[in-house]
Amino acid sequence: MKRILVLGAGLSTPSLIKYLLEHAVEYDWQVTVGDIEVDRAREKVKDHECGHAISFNVNNENDVKHHISNSDIVISLLPARFHQIIAEVCVKLKKNMVSASYVTPDMKALDGAAKDAGIILFNELGVDPGIDHMSAMKIIDQIKDEGGKLTGFWSSTGGLVAPEYDNNPWNYKFTWNPRNVVLAGQGVSKFIRNGKYKYIPYHELFNRLIKIPILDMGNFEIYPNRDSLKYRETYGLQSIQTMYRGTIRRPGFCEAWNVFVQLGATDDTYTLENSENMTYREFINTFLFYELNMPVESKLAVYMGIREDSEVMDKIKWLGVFEDNKIGLKNATPAQILQQLLEEKWTLGSDDKDMIVMRHLFEYTDKNNDAKQLSSTLVVYGDDQVNTAMAKTVGTPVAIATKLILT
Amino acid sequence: MKRILVLGAGLSTPSLIKYLLEHAVEYDWQVTVGDIEVDRAREKVKDHECGHAISFNVNNENDVKHHISNSDIVISLLPARFHQIIAEVCVKLKKNMVSASYVTPDMKALDGAAKDAGIILFNELGVDPGIDHMSAMKIIDQIKDEGGKLTGFWSSTGGLVAPEYDNNPWNYKFTWNPRNVVLAGQGVSKFIRNGKYKYIPYHELFNRLIKIPILDMGNFEIYPNRDSLKYRETYGLQSIQTMYRGTIRRPGFCEAWNVFVQLGATDDTYTLENSENMTYREFINTFLFYELNMPVESKLAVYMGIREDSEVMDKIKWLGVFEDNKIGLKNATPAQILQQLLEEKWTLGSDDKDMIVMRHLFEYTDKNNDAKQLSSTLVVYGDDQVNTAMAKTVGTPVAIATKLILT
Repeated sequence: MKRILVLGAGLSTPSLIKYLLEHAVEYDWQVTVGDIEVDRAREKVKDHECGHAISFNVNNENDVKHHISNSDIVISLLPARFHQIIAEVCVKLKKNMVSASYVTPDMKALDGAAKDAGIILFNELGVDPGIDHMSAMKIIDQIKDEGGKLTGFWSSTGGLVAPEYDNNPWNYKFTWNPRNVVLAGQGVSKFIRNGKYKYIPYHELFNRLIKIPILDMGNFEIYPNRDSLKYRETYGLQSIQTMYRGTIRRPGFCEAWNVFVQLGATDDTYTLENSENMTYREFINTFLFYELNMPVESKLAVYMGIREDSEVMDKIKWLGVFEDNKIGLKNATPAQILQQLLEEKWTLGSDDKDMIVMRHLFEYTDKNNDAKQLSSTLVVYGDDQVNTAMAKTVGTPVAIATKLILT
Repeated sequence: MKRILVLGAGLSTPSLIKYLLEHAVEYDWQVTVGDIEVDRAREKVKDHECGHAISFNVNNENDVKHHISNSDIVISLLPARFHQIIAEVCVKLKKNMVSASYVTPDMKALDGAAKDAGIILFNELGVDPGIDHMSAMKIIDQIKDEGGKLTGFWSSTGGLVAPEYDNNPWNYKFTWNPRNVVLAGQGVSKFIRNGKYKYIPYHELFNRLIKIPILDMGNFEIYPNRDSLKYRETYGLQSIQTMYRGTIRRPGFCEAWNVFVQLGATDDTYTLENSENMTYREFINTFLFYELNMPVESKLAVYMGIREDSEVMDKIKWLGVFEDNKIGLKNATPAQILQQLLEEKWTLGSDDKDMIVMRHLFEYTDKNNDAKQLSSTLVVYGDDQVNTAMAKTVGTPVAIATKLILT
């Protein structure tokens, strides 16, 4: 009998827990799911004979040690900032651990201790990061095995709304952590193209797009991820001349989103005076030049150098940013205010389904030194509100890795 | 006999030390000047009968305690990050302390302990912050005393080159810490105008200018300082409807500087790959879009939406950023590379003199409720390479405050 401890029972976990429970009898697993809200764990475990729902508080040190010591493997799907706590206890108690999140420098620093303890700390096992790595390496290894040499790698992923539910002017709804969407790309973005390093400051990021059709799904646009360089080493592509990772949106999204970037409305580093009593219209006006007799809409159009009847302005207006509705958030940052507004407008409806799109393009020379290209595309639709594309693509690789480690 | 300890003998200290030594016999002062490079201290003290030059290392805890305990008052003109160390020892040993630097939150937190110890921690005593506060409060108090009510306060300062030495296309040379000039304004800038709060993101800062003539000195332009709001309380102007603090430059500076801001070339948060072997031309190209057959100059002009023969491009070219000269700095941030280049070009020549310009504008209603304006302007030229306008305006208020405390 093996004991699996799943920490966190949030939006990304249904497919994972379902997979584990479906295989539990066959492999003799006991699956314990812990969440700070025990009802969320119960919903997922239901009355499965091998499933157990527990209340789990990551800040309770004794609880953390107790539950981990009673398990053979730990899956952490807690908010990313908590993985380190779990990983440190796993190393100490010699338990394997699996997560879908990025390897942070702190996590990387545990590598030696994990090896000494004889355990596995397996991260970046979701969709992005996760499936992107695995599907890329499959083809990279195949090209190498056939005597080819990779010269360029372009890889992009997007969490979007499925086409038949794609009915707002942004062609976008939140299928993932809204805060991460609002803050996406802050800092500098780095990639390399034909041997030239490129560094894009945040305020320019949503101007620097790649536009491509994908399969028969129509057109998409891609903006660069923060750091496309760091995976060169992981992928064994140290001397590759082109390496680009990006995020996929529907056409027009980035040009309109850029309005908020240019305004400074995505800033999360300071709070606005009197944000509680401000209206959204006043919020937008705080970023614009002072001009008493000009409507906010006109000032914004002038600021961005666009027409008031442009597509971009239509998208912005549709969000309600020009309404005189009170914000009602105390000591809020611009990013928090924007997120609150977007969560009203970009929420996935109760019948909506999401979609994951991932696309790799490999540029290489084959054994005859001929230049070749190969593309690899993944599209996944959500089944329903619980088994979303995001939950399936994040949870399934985590579940399979867990099975592989246990067997 | 009173013992004055001056810590730091850098560029801002000659006028201060001169003042103290000139008054030393009259007031029975012994003036000890400490610097990590003792020769810099010796140069300033010369062979004055009341002056002593010592080697002083702020990182040597015993030295710090020893020298402070042997003094009646401490003047810290060390790099700003070291003031806190000095202040904490001064509180412990019950010694008064004076500095020209901003009151940091850590410094403010020492206020209670300083009062309990019966000592003075007197900061913001230079030119800006310093003379700006004093000259503003003089007029603010005068307006209040005459039954008026302040409605608006605009205050700006600039460290510039004196007109007869102003001979480069930027109309600017470094008269102060170059690093601070390169990083100036990063983050968000806040002010209030007629009751409307305004928040300007960094990438927009150098577009949002005020253009004014000052006295008979020609035209200047002003960009907003980071936080114009925090002094409302200090100045007793909590309910003022307009409060703006800015930095003064000659016309055209900001539009050209904005090129570096738009490129991301002032970023100090990450290092460039292979910066050591890169040339300045390649440095500029890393921020621009990939387009193999287009010269970097043309790409920059397109990116900024300006003509290649524009004044802005002339300023940029004059700096040598398009030259294929090696940078030679290892693991450098964009800001460090830009600073190195600027230090070659914007250095005050050996015969050049600097200039400080400060200008306040007060808007108020008088006792008859009539709207009034009053402006107050300070212009100071440097005497020579040592007694610069910066040294005089920073050092003199510090020296006078020290005298007042001691007497």
